[in-house]
Amino acid sequence: MKNVKVAGVGLTKFGELWDKTLFDLATDAAMEAINDSGLTINQIEATFVGNMIYGRLSGQDHLGAAIATQAGIKGAGFRVEGACASGGLAVHLAVQSLLSGTYKNVLVVGVEKMTDASISEVTSALMGAGSDAERKAGLTFPGLYALMAKAHMQKYGTTRKHLASVSVKNHYHASLNSKAQFPFEITEEKVLNSPCICSPLSLFDTSPITDGAAALVLTSDTGKPGVYITGSAVATDTVDLASRKSLTEIAGSKEASQKALKQAGIEVKDIKVAEVHDCFTIAEIMAMEDLGFCGEGEGGKYVHSGTTKLGGKLPVNTSGGLKACGHPVGATGVKQIVEITEQLRKTSGKRQVDGANVGLTQNVGGTGGTVVVHILQT
Amino acid sequence: MKNVKVAGVGLTKFGELWDKTLFDLATDAAMEAINDSGLTINQIEATFVGNMIYGRLSGQDHLGAAIATQAGIKGAGFRVEGACASGGLAVHLAVQSLLSGTYKNVLVVGVEKMTDASISEVTSALMGAGSDAERKAGLTFPGLYALMAKAHMQKYGTTRKHLASVSVKNHYHASLNSKAQFPFEITEEKVLNSPCICSPLSLFDTSPITDGAAALVLTSDTGKPGVYITGSAVATDTVDLASRKSLTEIAGSKEASQKALKQAGIEVKDIKVAEVHDCFTIAEIMAMEDLGFCGEGEGGKYVHSGTTKLGGKLPVNTSGGLKACGHPVGATGVKQIVEITEQLRKTSGKRQVDGANVGLTQNVGGTGGTVVVHILQT
Repeated sequence: MKNVKVAGVGLTKFGELWDKTLFDLATDAAMEAINDSGLTINQIEATFVGNMIYGRLSGQDHLGAAIATQAGIKGAGFRVEGACASGGLAVHLAVQSLLSGTYKNVLVVGVEKMTDASISEVTSALMGAGSDAERKAGLTFPGLYALMAKAHMQKYGTTRKHLASVSVKNHYHASLNSKAQFPFEITEEKVLNSPCICSPLSLFDTSPITDGAAALVLTSDTGKPGVYITGSAVATDTVDLASRKSLTEIAGSKEASQKALKQAGIEVKDIKVAEVHDCFTIAEIMAMEDLGFCGEGEGGKYVHSGTTKLGGKLPVNTSGGLKACGHPVGATGVKQIVEITEQLRKTSGKRQVDGANVGLTQNVGGTGGTVVVHILQT
Repeated sequence: MKNVKVAGVGLTKFGELWDKTLFDLATDAAMEAINDSGLTINQIEATFVGNMIYGRLSGQDHLGAAIATQAGIKGAGFRVEGACASGGLAVHLAVQSLLSGTYKNVLVVGVEKMTDASISEVTSALMGAGSDAERKAGLTFPGLYALMAKAHMQKYGTTRKHLASVSVKNHYHASLNSKAQFPFEITEEKVLNSPCICSPLSLFDTSPITDGAAALVLTSDTGKPGVYITGSAVATDTVDLASRKSLTEIAGSKEASQKALKQAGIEVKDIKVAEVHDCFTIAEIMAMEDLGFCGEGEGGKYVHSGTTKLGGKLPVNTSGGLKACGHPVGATGVKQIVEITEQLRKTSGKRQVDGANVGLTQNVGGTGGTVVVHILQT
């Protein structure tokens, strides 16, 4: 399956961007992606917007039409939402629209503007990804992922040092990425001594609140060589954690990745680089297991061993991940594909993974209610 | 193009349904559609949810996964939002996913639960479909459509009696529809004497606040005869009215309908029955013109003549439309296709249009920022 090509990519700086509106960010990323594609704006037939919470924070919905028209793009417009997997879902549906033959060139924009609102407004809006029972219980996402972390530690002996190694690695990668919100290194000691957010997760186990946008131009014109989306799969599960059979896995990651690998006709051992959804450090450890990069319960040791650091066998989150590059929730799933595209184009500079020809992205909504996996290949 | 079939339809009662949750409504409609399709729940591979404002009103987003899993459906889940065109957009993207070959059987659920919230909460949430400038100016949708109505009256001599004829006709149709929120007839005098909402629009020129859900099972298994979606097109325009070149047309309706007719390989004269977006009476009058059913400026006289009443040449809004069947915003675009499917199946009972073999739906987001047009044929 080499029917959908990534023709162009665009990415804004991630961070506290108080001088930019959501529309500024979306347009900046979109124009960069369109310019990169070599297409003209009039050749874009549809705009897929991945966004989770802007309506809640600002009052503005209807972002498919709003972003497309403000950027001067004609044709169809859609907003796709699936919590923090909104960006990945937007890519998946954009891929369908190309495979269907309805559109030939489409734009995907993932965007979020979070830092203008208060922490309580953002926290409340983000809990839209959970369930009524979780909201009523006063749970927040740090609390939910802390439950998963506790269970993983008890069942498999995962330690706080294992968790910290995710953060240390991703900050190292971000230190090589000028677009990252936190482009600096941190030590294991700093993570372990940072304020407790919800035991066992501390401040440096958690991804930040971020403004940013990422964009892709996808095309069914596959005449020239390039980076192709060869697998695109979505799985769902209950949005509430308590209804799941296990706290120590995200079943949707297994389901979506197996489907995507099958579509691409490859095996997990073929993956050379991956961007995964490290909203909390425990999430990256579970992702390593659920995606089949290591065995069940071995994720902590696997990351701690350095295998997933640049220079290791399978670099993961070379962008810095959600933890250190930042997590503008609706943009994250799109940004992951921008990073992998650059890796496969060999344009990642200091973050370049040698021999990167196959990459994977994993984008999670909530605690795993939605999971989107993409496979990219040259 | 007969590649996508409507295999099953489901529709709840529309109205003030205080004994039902959003999930009850979505599940009721979904199960009815799945049962109607003859498929089993395990054959459904993806769930597309059209919903606009439930996150704003209740705190719950992530409805693709939430509705699918609560209904016991596995596979992918998506929420699609484009203001009051959310339902139509969900259908459009579901069609793409089938045409792409990725999925064979999918569920579309349009749902909204509006009457549990206060009028001010609902009004505020609905203004998410407009622009910042419109919100800051204190405009609401009755105000925006009143501007369009005033302009239409001044330019073309459209009268309040013309407007009222839309409402009288649609209430008559609703009086034959047990699912309608207002299943009773009203007189022209009643419309003209009802309280002014925003001049020239009075209470009976406006659609109500409604709870309800509509569902479709769509399939690419086209082995047996049935009702097919043969055209599906989306157009966008600025979300703010002031940036448009004209107040007396919705350009996106023209663009989307021309595309959809071309896909279906038919002409507008072939349409035998239509469901259009009569959020306000002026909207149905403009729809008649924009869709090409009558000439520019003639919409008022066209509706007033009785041509679009049951028994007339082209019955429009046989369900009762948004005005009298009700307008649960995310559900409306899906409900329109349920109504046309039943017409084409010849199962509409007292509302049956003789010889209905080609139907059209037009679903509008905001004042025309998004327009979705579908063509259905036997």
